[in-house]
Amino acid sequence: MTTRSDCLAMDAADALAGLRDQFALPEGVIYLDGNSLGARPKAALARAQEVIAREWGDDLIRSWNQAGWFDLPSRLGDKLAPLIGAAKNETVVTDTTSINLFKALAAALHIQAGSPSSAGRKRIVTERANFPTDVYIAQGLSSWLARGVEIRLVDSPEDLPAAIDAQTAVVMLTHVNYRTGYMHDMKALTARAHSCGALTVWDLAHSAGAVPVDLNADKADFAVGCTYKYLNGGPGAPAFIWVAARHQAGFQQPLSGWWGHAAPFAMQAEFRPIDGIRRALCGTQPIVSLAMVECGLDLFAQTSMDAIRAKSLALTDLFIRLVEDRCAKHPLSLVTPREHARRGSQVSFAHPHGYAVMQALIGRGVIGDYREPAIMRFGLTPLYTRFIDVWDAMEILADILDNKKYDVAAPRDAVT
Amino acid sequence: MTTRSDCLAMDAADALAGLRDQFALPEGVIYLDGNSLGARPKAALARAQEVIAREWGDDLIRSWNQAGWFDLPSRLGDKLAPLIGAAKNETVVTDTTSINLFKALAAALHIQAGSPSSAGRKRIVTERANFPTDVYIAQGLSSWLARGVEIRLVDSPEDLPAAIDAQTAVVMLTHVNYRTGYMHDMKALTARAHSCGALTVWDLAHSAGAVPVDLNADKADFAVGCTYKYLNGGPGAPAFIWVAARHQAGFQQPLSGWWGHAAPFAMQAEFRPIDGIRRALCGTQPIVSLAMVECGLDLFAQTSMDAIRAKSLALTDLFIRLVEDRCAKHPLSLVTPREHARRGSQVSFAHPHGYAVMQALIGRGVIGDYREPAIMRFGLTPLYTRFIDVWDAMEILADILDNKKYDVAAPRDAVT
Repeated sequence: MTTRSDCLAMDAADALAGLRDQFALPEGVIYLDGNSLGARPKAALARAQEVIAREWGDDLIRSWNQAGWFDLPSRLGDKLAPLIGAAKNETVVTDTTSINLFKALAAALHIQAGSPSSAGRKRIVTERANFPTDVYIAQGLSSWLARGVEIRLVDSPEDLPAAIDAQTAVVMLTHVNYRTGYMHDMKALTARAHSCGALTVWDLAHSAGAVPVDLNADKADFAVGCTYKYLNGGPGAPAFIWVAARHQAGFQQPLSGWWGHAAPFAMQAEFRPIDGIRRALCGTQPIVSLAMVECGLDLFAQTSMDAIRAKSLALTDLFIRLVEDRCAKHPLSLVTPREHARRGSQVSFAHPHGYAVMQALIGRGVIGDYREPAIMRFGLTPLYTRFIDVWDAMEILADILDNKKYDVAAPRDAVT
Repeated sequence: MTTRSDCLAMDAADALAGLRDQFALPEGVIYLDGNSLGARPKAALARAQEVIAREWGDDLIRSWNQAGWFDLPSRLGDKLAPLIGAAKNETVVTDTTSINLFKALAAALHIQAGSPSSAGRKRIVTERANFPTDVYIAQGLSSWLARGVEIRLVDSPEDLPAAIDAQTAVVMLTHVNYRTGYMHDMKALTARAHSCGALTVWDLAHSAGAVPVDLNADKADFAVGCTYKYLNGGPGAPAFIWVAARHQAGFQQPLSGWWGHAAPFAMQAEFRPIDGIRRALCGTQPIVSLAMVECGLDLFAQTSMDAIRAKSLALTDLFIRLVEDRCAKHPLSLVTPREHARRGSQVSFAHPHGYAVMQALIGRGVIGDYREPAIMRFGLTPLYTRFIDVWDAMEILADILDNKKYDVAAPRDAVT
């Protein structure tokens, strides 16, 4: 039997333990929602102050050159690259995940439409359980395209290989499911897509900084993701888009704004895309929010995704085991895969009163979140989550369940 | 003859003079580039610190509800509304100007395609001299649409009324030209468009906070604009989109992300747009950059657009007169209209060595900017520009020109 002392010993032996000091975490809170909004790197405040007071306030318009504002999307993209198996000049940090997905999906469909062997393909294959905005963006794009596109919503990950066929233009998947924590086999599904002549678009919202990702080794085609979850870039910080080098010359997307122009300051009347990944840019970026992304990325340079993954699996294994042992008599069911290879960096449990139980947990300082239907999500973020946090969260959960300390009639927040 | 003392007297009598103290302006700089990047409101630093340290750092995910992050696009839109003649619930602050233009243009074309009298119209009328990204976005959108769209680039503002005809689906214009400072007659051109059955999309990038705008009185249909120029929202701060109330029920746009869904947290697989202006939203917004927009808007609540306009015309009149008097022997030509009704809040002069002269001005602390071809732009921003600044800038310009203190061989910055 694991004890609280064992958890303290695990923290004492944890090579990543020191990184927690580089985050500003409030007292009395066990924060298990880094899969929704990452905690604040201490450095982010000073960085924002520098951008606001000196770069904006003192240097004003000159900062576009002097402070490198204009290059920031590419510079941050290159800094992010090692975490997702990207090469230099394949990634930019810009816009939102939804908008970047629109670009990637449009570009993939455009490449397929121009390919003699794929021009007739009209199907996007994705999952019904995908994060909704991904499906909405595919719906929005397809209804506006010159040629009709059909979206096939697959009901189960096991059905995906068979659903990808010679009619498939693009396979669009979120690598780690936001609700269940299920992680797809990127390499196998990409190979399956390619064997059918399809291209892949991967959403890494719950993968980047959470699990090892190797886009180039897995031969992925396009990817997008967000920086405000496991990458700790700040609330709503700009997202990223990755385009494999081999696709960049053919990359065309409808949001052809001036930042993607070959000569943005020549003020020409005809759009001519710049060579390389910057053709994925569109308009002027929110510099203060963008600059803070770097503070999150800098923390990853102090460790490795392998070390993060080892701790993530240890944390999620521990949480599953402790909760299942201690709360065995309650109607909790594990939603997240037990198999390491299929698990992201979260643990989701379903409970008939999941919303109310989660509200009670939050009231006791254990911040996870709730997702329809009936699912309590616990994000375990190795940069700042301790083994003792896992223990204490489990104890509070057990107390709430054992003593029915939750209010099934509690009103719901607008944003849950 | 106006003297430097006269300018000091004008400042002493200026009812807006006190507002300058609410900006953090560097010593030794005459900042005449607020038309590109507005100066920093002092309040912006404290606001960012609050968002970063307390709302993000301490309250974490709870701030989406508690701190009102999720409502921020609408709340700021309503605060901006009086400056552009909008009603409540017609404006949101979100994404970039380019992306908002894409949404507005797509929505306008969609409405026209569904109208029995307009369904066959396939033409967007705009200006060749429009800010390039506006034309690029129209090109990008039209090349991806199910039905072909033709873009007509009109060469001169005087040719616009005749270019708008029964084939015109949408008239897309920037109200105040970024390069020349020419201001269109929004009311007359909108009336002309409507009389032909066309809809209007107005880009207010150089209008919002710079000149009085009355979208509803002028019966405009759609508008977009940026918050980082005359509105002083911060570098790359999110832009805005306005949709006239009468068009909101029919407003559909391809960037149908989850923030525009009727029930974003119900996690449904089918996109169903929310009622009202929030259907113009797409994905998660950069909260720190977004929150600072409020600090710029709050300054406008201390005065009126009429007072700002009166000072703007006084500043631009003075600058034109002083430069033309003092630099008469140099090959400077005024590009900005002399007629008040056609002038924005900037003065542009062409000079054969415009780039080199502007670099010399910047070296002397007079920060304007340069736009191809050969145009020096001087933004005169009534909230923080003084009459004495106009005098001193003119004196330095005269010295540079009289004594050829500029280097025609100076290398150009990447971003000019």
